[in-house]
Amino acid sequence: MLKEKTIRTSKHNELIDITSDIRLMIRESDIDEGVCHIFVPHTTAAVTINEKADPAVARDIANDLERLVPDSPAFTHAEGNSDAHVKTTLTGTSEFLIISGGEPVLGIWQAVFFCEFDGPRTRRYVARISGS
Amino acid sequence: MLKEKTIRTSKHNELIDITSDIRLMIRESDIDEGVCHIFVPHTTAAVTINEKADPAVARDIANDLERLVPDSPAFTHAEGNSDAHVKTTLTGTSEFLIISGGEPVLGIWQAVFFCEFDGPRTRRYVARISGS
Amino acid sequence: MLKEKTIRTSKHNELIDITSDIRLMIRESDIDEGVCHIFVPHTTAAVTINEKADPAVARDIANDLERLVPDSPAFTHAEGNSDAHVKTTLTGTSEFLIISGGEPVLGIWQAVFFCEFDGPRTRRYVARISGS
Repeated sequence: MLKEKTIRTSKHNELIDITSDIRLMIRESDIDEGVCHIFVPHTTAAVTINEKADPAVARDIANDLERLVPDSPAFTHAEGNSDAHVKTTLTGTSEFLIISGGEPVLGIWQAVFFCEFDGPRTRRYVARISGS
Repeated sequence: MLKEKTIRTSKHNELIDITSDIRLMIRESDIDEGVCHIFVPHTTAAVTINEKADPAVARDIANDLERLVPDSPAFTHAEGNSDAHVKTTLTGTSEFLIISGGEPVLGIWQAVFFCEFDGPRTRRYVARISGS
Repeated sequence: MLKEKTIRTSKHNELIDITSDIRLMIRESDIDEGVCHIFVPHTTAAVTINEKADPAVARDIANDLERLVPDSPAFTHAEGNSDAHVKTTLTGTSEFLIISGGEPVLGIWQAVFFCEFDGPRTRRYVARISGS
């Protein structure tokens, strides 16, 4: 089952918790045992799994990726957002979740975050849920 | 088939070769052709695939991630381990292996490494092995 | 269905668009709905998904990974290519594509790139295409 979701980002760099939407997609699929493949069809946005308990963690990650990959005069891409493309490759545009008992297998502190690196924009992601 | 394994790490930052345990899980599954999805349910630990032949490689990777993402006064997360969270997002909490002929498809130098970024701790990882 | 492809790289660091070969593999599989798992069996090469429209993006990514992970006297691996191993862990040796309607689900600007970090060499990658 293929699902698509639109998401509106509000900052230039931010991580947005999308776990509840992913959980809903998995429940709607009625698949108890399987895998959920999440894919971001953008080149300046990504997806990661990290801590949700303290929202400071998501901000620290977004800010530290800024520090690691600042905009630079060495970049030659005419659109001027090569830093966002590098962050996308470092973070990755996909994640999978193992499904067991109708729920994603996630650690107690884990959440799935949509990563905006060149916003604000209207974005989307795709999820495929399959049983075995 | 879903398997879970506990692992005890002994350093603050280290990569631990878990390939033999993964191979055993795949053999126990009796699945000849399929995919093994490996997932780390932590937010300051990850999994990567890299060279096993020279143990210096795993140490160089752990040390260079320290250099890339040092602890910083800019971090706001109260637990003080945001560097470990950033390393987790850069490395990723999951990997998949293609299974062919009952064995994971791996290059001759490749091994699967559990990545501890905030140890020592007792950790775990989950593997799902499915045929096609 | 398991496919393997050999690729000849021509530079020390480069990203090579392999999307047309992946599309061909998917078409040959006759699988309309499923997942394509792509795996690079090397420890100094990787795979990423990023922008193809402007070739400057792929060059900017390769160059910026050079900036992020330069060769260093701190590395202890005797072969002297630990920077390439670190880049491999940061980028990742695998990607999956969701298949829908017989085609990979990709954004309009997205392409799949083989990432050479220690070339030029003869390399290979493996793709497994499975339906649901």
